[in-house]
Amino acid sequence: MKVEVICIGDELLIGQTVNTNASWIGSEFAKQGVKVAFCTVIKDTVSDIVNALDLALSRVDTVVITGGLGPTKDDITKHTLTKYFNTELEINQEVLERVTTYFKKRGRSMLDVNMQQAAMPKSCKVLRNDHGTASGMWFDYEGKVVISLPGVPHEMKHILIESGFPLLKEKFGSKALYHRTLQFQGIGESYIADRIADIEESLVEAGLKFAYLPSAGLVRFRISGADSQRDIDIISSFVDELYERFPENVFGEGNDSLAEVIGRLLTEKEMTLGSVESCTGGTVASEIVHVQGSSSYFLGSIVSYANEVKTNFVGVNEYDIIQQGAVSETVVKQMAQNGREKLGVDYCISTSGIAGPGGGSEEKPVGLVWVGVAGPEGVSARKFLFGDFRERNIRMTVLSALNLLRCKLLEINTEKK
Amino acid sequence: MKVEVICIGDELLIGQTVNTNASWIGSEFAKQGVKVAFCTVIKDTVSDIVNALDLALSRVDTVVITGGLGPTKDDITKHTLTKYFNTELEINQEVLERVTTYFKKRGRSMLDVNMQQAAMPKSCKVLRNDHGTASGMWFDYEGKVVISLPGVPHEMKHILIESGFPLLKEKFGSKALYHRTLQFQGIGESYIADRIADIEESLVEAGLKFAYLPSAGLVRFRISGADSQRDIDIISSFVDELYERFPENVFGEGNDSLAEVIGRLLTEKEMTLGSVESCTGGTVASEIVHVQGSSSYFLGSIVSYANEVKTNFVGVNEYDIIQQGAVSETVVKQMAQNGREKLGVDYCISTSGIAGPGGGSEEKPVGLVWVGVAGPEGVSARKFLFGDFRERNIRMTVLSALNLLRCKLLEINTEKK
Repeated sequence: MKVEVICIGDELLIGQTVNTNASWIGSEFAKQGVKVAFCTVIKDTVSDIVNALDLALSRVDTVVITGGLGPTKDDITKHTLTKYFNTELEINQEVLERVTTYFKKRGRSMLDVNMQQAAMPKSCKVLRNDHGTASGMWFDYEGKVVISLPGVPHEMKHILIESGFPLLKEKFGSKALYHRTLQFQGIGESYIADRIADIEESLVEAGLKFAYLPSAGLVRFRISGADSQRDIDIISSFVDELYERFPENVFGEGNDSLAEVIGRLLTEKEMTLGSVESCTGGTVASEIVHVQGSSSYFLGSIVSYANEVKTNFVGVNEYDIIQQGAVSETVVKQMAQNGREKLGVDYCISTSGIAGPGGGSEEKPVGLVWVGVAGPEGVSARKFLFGDFRERNIRMTVLSALNLLRCKLLEINTEKK
Repeated sequence: MKVEVICIGDELLIGQTVNTNASWIGSEFAKQGVKVAFCTVIKDTVSDIVNALDLALSRVDTVVITGGLGPTKDDITKHTLTKYFNTELEINQEVLERVTTYFKKRGRSMLDVNMQQAAMPKSCKVLRNDHGTASGMWFDYEGKVVISLPGVPHEMKHILIESGFPLLKEKFGSKALYHRTLQFQGIGESYIADRIADIEESLVEAGLKFAYLPSAGLVRFRISGADSQRDIDIISSFVDELYERFPENVFGEGNDSLAEVIGRLLTEKEMTLGSVESCTGGTVASEIVHVQGSSSYFLGSIVSYANEVKTNFVGVNEYDIIQQGAVSETVVKQMAQNGREKLGVDYCISTSGIAGPGGGSEEKPVGLVWVGVAGPEGVSARKFLFGDFRERNIRMTVLSALNLLRCKLLEINTEKK
């Protein structure tokens, strides 16, 4: 099965709406081992729809269209498809009843345009929409399939899950793919590639595919192959090898976040967490608290942005701040240790750095960051040198601090070799 | 100018990454009065890239490509474009210096693959990337333009803003548009529309266009017209009217964030700020600290997620927590007042709520939130009832709290009418 997604709507092209429909459809197909091959976004015009359909039917066998099924004049997808497939509209009694009920239930009067939502192309299979008035459509065409769906995300998803995917499985069967995605922190894609160069080539020769998906401080590394025992075995032992080679860096799989991974580890160990933050200004705590159920292990934080707060509240030695500077190993260690005691937690993360753009010096440039972790077994700290951009420096610091805690919880040695 | 955006990357097609690049590019062109006509998402293969380029160059005159410029083997855009435009790669000295400096600054060794980032197609204009190692490229081709950019959002945006758009303006001129965007907090788009219905129609008749761009807790409202004195005058007096009608809600223009607006107000008044946060868990502080220069007015925060931290650290009355609950007017007011004293700040924001999904009850459901602000003139608090989604509830709470502070700083009455 080869799939193209066509999304119709000006709002997508001018950026008023982010195209989350396309990514959702792509990930649903991927789960079933089908890679969407193309996604095309076009305006609400007859000629663009017809041209996009011509092209799609020339290169794939399944076309999924979203958008343009509303009751207003600018929604032209249904009429265009009716002409394209050389059929005509007629009132579908089942749809009419559903639409009528829909309005009755909401105590709203039904306008003529709403009634028109029950007019369906004769030759299509109607895909039932329980959440709105725009039905989906399934057209069989020279062995290929065109599915048309409303653009409202929850209606589109509902129709595809309830009717679209089951019908596609019936028609094409399902060719399964197998893939795993590993999450790396604290190492760039080129360094990963360099450190697996000795095994990468033979895996490529075996037909596996790799993709590096980098974002600030993180790289997601995806390995894919066929859903065959051979490929599954190769991928599994490769993944094991990656865990072994990069214990400091590989923190999870799939959509794991570092904060979730840490949450699971703390829950397992029945340990609690807090933070004392300077340059990250609460972002470490915020990241932790965004995880559901974090209240069972996260107790609180002190954001000691100003030096007075570091001394008065956290009890950092004033003399050390004057002597070593707030961005120093001594201070970041005191922040973690004192925070651990004051907040009454098992583990405490600390951060202190120069996020920029101001505040840098030759000795301590923008991007210089110290992170610390105090725990039952003592305190450790690590120095980083990030870049020039405030937001990115904060993000990198948060991820590095969370990863340092993860390594500590798993007793992974993070000393530089 | 007719524009097509081509996004290259499996991660977009299989839904691992949402295509925010396409929507950002679309909205930037829209601001300049140009509607993107097509957006095509394709895989990282030579034939798909070549076919997409052929098609794009047959129907538009400006093609913007994102993705596939990284240093690893799966990044093939540069090589494909080099062949497509019948040119060859050569080391560009300026780029080489930039890439070398990039690695030196970070104290990282440079690999051969990184060096290859300096090999550029001879016939292209190199678009400087100050944020990464993948340069942008500009190809002139039979009166048309192809721009190739990295897929990493902040690098792509930087290159397009600094080099791409200025060069496009030079080449194609620009049809002048005038627009202003107002930022609203705490009111939905349909309520804004309802409260301006009496003037909206005459403005539409005068040829002005409106766009509502909603996100959680915020609505950006864009008004556009021609760059003529007539339209500028109409829009200006309409904007004045909006400021007058929605003093509680309109907090800024353009890309203003609430945290920036508050930063400017505090700087003007030479006042300092702190926060005591429960349900937002540091996100208020994080939002404030992301603004450059915030260290001049933001001193620190206490994240009192657990009740022990609220009592031991912030000095909230334990009896009140037991009697009224942590999510109550009494507690949120004590958090703000005590935080103000303890942190030694002029203003202190406080938050307490049930973010969900757990922790709700009939009396205090998920989504119930209290926010407070204490200042020199006393303390005030406000209750909100948001929805079912944790992340959204946190976001709405942060924005509502910041806006309550803004209203307090500007002496705007926020009592419910």
